[in-house]
Amino acid sequence: MAVVGTGLIGTSIGLAVSRHGVTVHLLDKDEVAARTAAALGAGVVGASDEQVDLAVLAVPPSAVGEVLAEMQARGLARSYTDVASVKAQLARDIRTSVDVPSSYVGGHPLASSEHCGPLAARADLFEDRAWVLTPSETTSQDAVNRVFEMIALCGAIPVIMESGAHDNAVALTSHAPHLVASLMAARLRHSPREAIRLAGQGLHDMTRIAVRDTGLWSDILQANGPAVAGVLRGLRDDLTTLLATLDDLSSTPQDMRSQSLDPLVDLLDRGAAGLAAIQGRQAADRQTRVEVQVAEGPGQLVRLLDTLKTFHVEAEDVVPRHSPEEGTLSLTFAVQPTRAGQIVLELGRAGWNAESLDPVSGARQRKIVSVLAPRAA
Amino acid sequence: MAVVGTGLIGTSIGLAVSRHGVTVHLLDKDEVAARTAAALGAGVVGASDEQVDLAVLAVPPSAVGEVLAEMQARGLARSYTDVASVKAQLARDIRTSVDVPSSYVGGHPLASSEHCGPLAARADLFEDRAWVLTPSETTSQDAVNRVFEMIALCGAIPVIMESGAHDNAVALTSHAPHLVASLMAARLRHSPREAIRLAGQGLHDMTRIAVRDTGLWSDILQANGPAVAGVLRGLRDDLTTLLATLDDLSSTPQDMRSQSLDPLVDLLDRGAAGLAAIQGRQAADRQTRVEVQVAEGPGQLVRLLDTLKTFHVEAEDVVPRHSPEEGTLSLTFAVQPTRAGQIVLELGRAGWNAESLDPVSGARQRKIVSVLAPRAA
Repeated sequence: MAVVGTGLIGTSIGLAVSRHGVTVHLLDKDEVAARTAAALGAGVVGASDEQVDLAVLAVPPSAVGEVLAEMQARGLARSYTDVASVKAQLARDIRTSVDVPSSYVGGHPLASSEHCGPLAARADLFEDRAWVLTPSETTSQDAVNRVFEMIALCGAIPVIMESGAHDNAVALTSHAPHLVASLMAARLRHSPREAIRLAGQGLHDMTRIAVRDTGLWSDILQANGPAVAGVLRGLRDDLTTLLATLDDLSSTPQDMRSQSLDPLVDLLDRGAAGLAAIQGRQAADRQTRVEVQVAEGPGQLVRLLDTLKTFHVEAEDVVPRHSPEEGTLSLTFAVQPTRAGQIVLELGRAGWNAESLDPVSGARQRKIVSVLAPRAA
Repeated sequence: MAVVGTGLIGTSIGLAVSRHGVTVHLLDKDEVAARTAAALGAGVVGASDEQVDLAVLAVPPSAVGEVLAEMQARGLARSYTDVASVKAQLARDIRTSVDVPSSYVGGHPLASSEHCGPLAARADLFEDRAWVLTPSETTSQDAVNRVFEMIALCGAIPVIMESGAHDNAVALTSHAPHLVASLMAARLRHSPREAIRLAGQGLHDMTRIAVRDTGLWSDILQANGPAVAGVLRGLRDDLTTLLATLDDLSSTPQDMRSQSLDPLVDLLDRGAAGLAAIQGRQAADRQTRVEVQVAEGPGQLVRLLDTLKTFHVEAEDVVPRHSPEEGTLSLTFAVQPTRAGQIVLELGRAGWNAESLDPVSGARQRKIVSVLAPRAA
């Protein structure tokens, strides 16, 4: 295969595919980039004498059409794909401007990094990530299958989408968030020194994705402007309501404030719901609760929390309960119904007194173990 | 000492201070929380018979005044501090409503976690973090010194600030960013399933701090509303400009777009500058560049990059250079002038041909080693 454009994405594809013994030909108009990618082990510099099966055009979105036409004209490959994060306009351009549109299938690997350039490339960049393909009616099945093969070699998961649906989705999950991070980061430009000193991990994480590559993002926003603007308009409406609420609060006496807080509480609640949506949390009422008794003695609670972490049950999802009659402390937490049995069983094996509670009545369903204190750690 | 309120912060303080042999008395109107904190090793449940030196009121911002008055009335401690993230209004309230305002010094540990409750507590939560104190003219030096001692036991770094300056700083670095994360997360509430599937680490990091504890944040925003609104109003102005630019772009023919991109590029640039400000990066022109030759042979570039990482030089900050005459590849990167000498020396010891370049002319300052190829790895 061939990779045209040996930046972060192109070089990472080369590294991933080369591991499996496939020869990758690296092309870049910047010869240093191509040589660097080759030195990292991503392939060999320069085109093959023979036509390759697949060429990946890992060039900026606005250059894909032109590079595709050029590479088709010199017969570089039998099939082509790209890695641009906006697909619909590109598909329209290619349909009208390219000789053999059937040999091209739009692609977008969902791998992100705030770094760029070949030196930041990693063979495992795509592992377990989604890789969207947006074939049109004219795309040949051969082209799609060749890209499937490359995606498999990269350890990624193919997702077929209609190009417009893809663009709307990434406007919401990637393009708008990047711009919102930039909007927040722009506020920090002339921060007093003492404010910077108080900046914590939360602020760093929130602004980390602020756009640095202005050229790339101008491309993206030109191609996906209306979808991104749609998301940001909704956000601006919420922001306007929030500002009005904050102004109201300042002018309302403290004891009359509870009602004027409503729009604020509504926004925060919707934010929490959105967070739960992307974190894939299930509603608590669709989960099974598990109760574990904490054994008496120093360190037992810490030991139990460590054990729960191995089941991906985090401390924040755990509710402590104290029984004054029995003088015992127990922890309850909610897990997916399919996982509850296994967790109770393994906690029992580790010596803890655990049981799952009926999701509706809260009654104890089954008592797996009756050991009251855990075995020695 | 005593901790009143054994949530995440109070319990973490108890854990940190207890490590050093100080007896911590844990009070919470929720007895389960106090018992849980005690079971974790944060101290003993219930007040001491004798007056303690220091009580930390780790209760919600709106409760601090009332709890302080109550604890002073029962003579719990000689000095008091709190952990609320808004300080100016609280200071005013306390000055007028509390019997002995001199025994209180406002405090705010800059430790964050998206988790809450005693089970999420960690003894090292405050390590190397800033801990702001906002003493007023009436605050006794004894009170400040007792809090200094506790901060030292927690491994944190004290920062003295005027309460209003503190509130403006956290509006910018914490309160506004949390709300912006909520605004973005709120957009994701009814995302199509396929969009959620495309959500990557960037989106997760950006929205992670979206507010979940509505009660706490209503407190914070009531107390710091004007400062937060000031930050958000600036952000809304930028957002309005951005939306107008996106609309313009959609209606401008492709070949006439470069000028209408200006406001967008300006915003992205300001965002990048803000990011650089909080990441504490120095301007490149105040740095010394170092150049290292990559030895010939497979794996040498990867080995060099791994070595550079041990000096905290990341791949994204490294620029490759290819010399066509000599057929060699070299890397250059910028570091703080004070670190350049040491890095060149250690690279030389590891067998690399490295030199630092004059920051003004780019001329080679000194050649530390003249080995052309590194010694065997």
